[in-house]
Amino acid sequence: MEQKKIKIALLGLGTVGTGVYKLIQRRADVMEHTIGAQLELSRILVHNMNKTREGVDTSLLTDNWKDILQDGEIQIVIEVMGGIEPARTMILEAMNAGKNVVTANKDLVAEYGKELLDTAEENQCDFLFEAAVAGGIPIIRPLKQCLAGNDISAVIGIVNGTTNYILTKMFDEGVSFEEALKKATELGYAEADPTADVEGLDAGRKAAIMASVAFRSRVVFGDVYTEGITGITAEDIHYAKEFDSVIKLLGVARNTEGGIEVGVYPMLLNKEHPLASVRDSFNAVFVHGDAVDDAMFYGRGAGELPTASAVLGDIIDVARNLQYHCTGRISCTCYKALPIKNFDDVKNKFFIRMQVENQPGVLACIATVFGDHKVSIARVVQKRAHEKEAELVIVTEKVKEYHLKDALRELKEKDSIKEISSVIREY
Amino acid sequence: MEQKKIKIALLGLGTVGTGVYKLIQRRADVMEHTIGAQLELSRILVHNMNKTREGVDTSLLTDNWKDILQDGEIQIVIEVMGGIEPARTMILEAMNAGKNVVTANKDLVAEYGKELLDTAEENQCDFLFEAAVAGGIPIIRPLKQCLAGNDISAVIGIVNGTTNYILTKMFDEGVSFEEALKKATELGYAEADPTADVEGLDAGRKAAIMASVAFRSRVVFGDVYTEGITGITAEDIHYAKEFDSVIKLLGVARNTEGGIEVGVYPMLLNKEHPLASVRDSFNAVFVHGDAVDDAMFYGRGAGELPTASAVLGDIIDVARNLQYHCTGRISCTCYKALPIKNFDDVKNKFFIRMQVENQPGVLACIATVFGDHKVSIARVVQKRAHEKEAELVIVTEKVKEYHLKDALRELKEKDSIKEISSVIREY
Repeated sequence: MEQKKIKIALLGLGTVGTGVYKLIQRRADVMEHTIGAQLELSRILVHNMNKTREGVDTSLLTDNWKDILQDGEIQIVIEVMGGIEPARTMILEAMNAGKNVVTANKDLVAEYGKELLDTAEENQCDFLFEAAVAGGIPIIRPLKQCLAGNDISAVIGIVNGTTNYILTKMFDEGVSFEEALKKATELGYAEADPTADVEGLDAGRKAAIMASVAFRSRVVFGDVYTEGITGITAEDIHYAKEFDSVIKLLGVARNTEGGIEVGVYPMLLNKEHPLASVRDSFNAVFVHGDAVDDAMFYGRGAGELPTASAVLGDIIDVARNLQYHCTGRISCTCYKALPIKNFDDVKNKFFIRMQVENQPGVLACIATVFGDHKVSIARVVQKRAHEKEAELVIVTEKVKEYHLKDALRELKEKDSIKEISSVIREY
Repeated sequence: MEQKKIKIALLGLGTVGTGVYKLIQRRADVMEHTIGAQLELSRILVHNMNKTREGVDTSLLTDNWKDILQDGEIQIVIEVMGGIEPARTMILEAMNAGKNVVTANKDLVAEYGKELLDTAEENQCDFLFEAAVAGGIPIIRPLKQCLAGNDISAVIGIVNGTTNYILTKMFDEGVSFEEALKKATELGYAEADPTADVEGLDAGRKAAIMASVAFRSRVVFGDVYTEGITGITAEDIHYAKEFDSVIKLLGVARNTEGGIEVGVYPMLLNKEHPLASVRDSFNAVFVHGDAVDDAMFYGRGAGELPTASAVLGDIIDVARNLQYHCTGRISCTCYKALPIKNFDDVKNKFFIRMQVENQPGVLACIATVFGDHKVSIARVVQKRAHEKEAELVIVTEKVKEYHLKDALRELKEKDSIKEISSVIREY
């Protein structure tokens, strides 16, 4: 234990930055006990110096990155600007200048994780990113440390609060996707442009990071198949209830013999599964390891203070490493180079809802098409049969994605199939 | 990175010890990547050298502690014998000889945590005990590191798998406590003498450890109020269902202005609470922090490999510290000395089931007694009214334990109250 003061700089003062600022102030009096030193926030990089910022010490603000980069006393840089550039360049420059970095930037870690961690290792400094996945929920450190003795075969997460709120609303109140999205926007859960959330892109970035850490093999965002929840209807939710299930947008990563399977898509999930009870904007990550068996981590996946909680946890860890001269103690854990399985070859069960002609022989026709494409049927339910049309729900056994795609393509051409209304995977 | 081999010794080869032995073997080929060195299990301390042990390299066995203590090459000692002595003496001797210690021993940590951590600090070595609470579930490290930036106000856990299995069985099948216990014994979930489990003592030890780590102030087992589940009846479970609740044995620790409240007791818990969906022998720990908000950690609380998972996670952490010359990096985090609140002063809501004379005026009489003792009534349900007797269920508002106790004592003396059948706290 040597230093009495550890100087840090904050890049960005948006929602997360403000949370980190507040939390560092709130905990100032206990840092001496926690890390044996005071944390001194000495600089904050902002884009616009003239913006009014309530409760912020304006003497700390700068719009010049060099003020931070060239300040040899600053030992920890906290990047909470988001986006790829200029965050990436600044982080690389900071580490090359011997500074340790804590970030909440999932976009960056999901795309440039290798470059960033390699640079950290070259400079023997810390690059920590607990806040980049599932906000306040401890998941990176548990995977890298607590569960380090496991061979982890699956990481499955509800890692986007906006979509989980929407799906919970649809489930509880029977409303449409559009109505639930409107409510989410009103409450500030959804952004003006909700694309990244509802199309599964945000969850996809987190899935890439989780898979990399869990399987010790690099997975980038481009490897992740993504499918959002915009096509989920009140009818689908209604059937889910009938099947004692819920529908959740899951980031699913599995380490299989044929390679890593990784995707984000809505799934029907039995109510007894621990992830099924994760409601509203809460997140959770379910892990299966060969020793630990099933485990789950639950909490707030976003928000000013929950995310700041994860960032401050990382800062405290770096500070302890500085005190013990062991920064870089845990760096990149991806020592394998496992292949990524083509998503077409991934096997899933499917829930398929379709509108068909209400006449004898239609089911036989469908069964034949499915059979021709190696799709086994587990369950058939017919509902809402009118004079001419009926709604048919088919649940398949596990089948390769491309076999199902081919079967559906063929079915669409049949006159007796009026519409394929929904195709949702089943857990 | 320096050492190519890190020598470790195992104390005890029971269920957990065997799990650790197996898991170290299973992971041997990846340790080079994980910690930059091989883990070499060089000694195993056993009580009986002559017992047959399938698949164990008998050349490693010894019944002489000095063989390990005096072997200067052994850097990590893994204590999985359980119980207070000789574990305590051996661990102290090991640390005084400069060795790092990993333990799964909740009894010991819950009673002698301060002595052990102080000794670790004096010797600048690691003393890690992730496996002592909730088996394979990462909880100690998340509290000490990931959530280190929080002021944690509550830690509430289902930390005993046996009782959770029994209560789940009672809930699902409507059977009595005795029947469910019998089933748990048959399946090996309950020991021949189930006292430590069903009376809440095992959970109490874990609650003491969790409270110490979460609130950064020492709590020992003797501080924990404990009440088991032997008094829970099928009727109670029936009412819980009617109230959209479950009954769970909870370790409840709260950091309040008047001191730390800590106890283990069965509670009625609304079905929407994340802990309510923790079924069978699974464990979970729910945490509330001022920044992270609600979080929960779920998984296997016991068993050979899940517990070994936590132990190996700790071993890997010590090995990394050895490689970076920073053992003792995180030692005791209890820098506060908060008072423990007298349990009589703790406030809870209560569910009270009683048999009363079925005649006018009885409820008024009960209400008067409660009122005299500052007990407010939130809800009254009358069921099974026969000619002479009726069953009355009363749920109170939050009330101090001793006020309720006094009220119940007075009620018991009334002729119109035939029996106070159950008194269960409500979350």
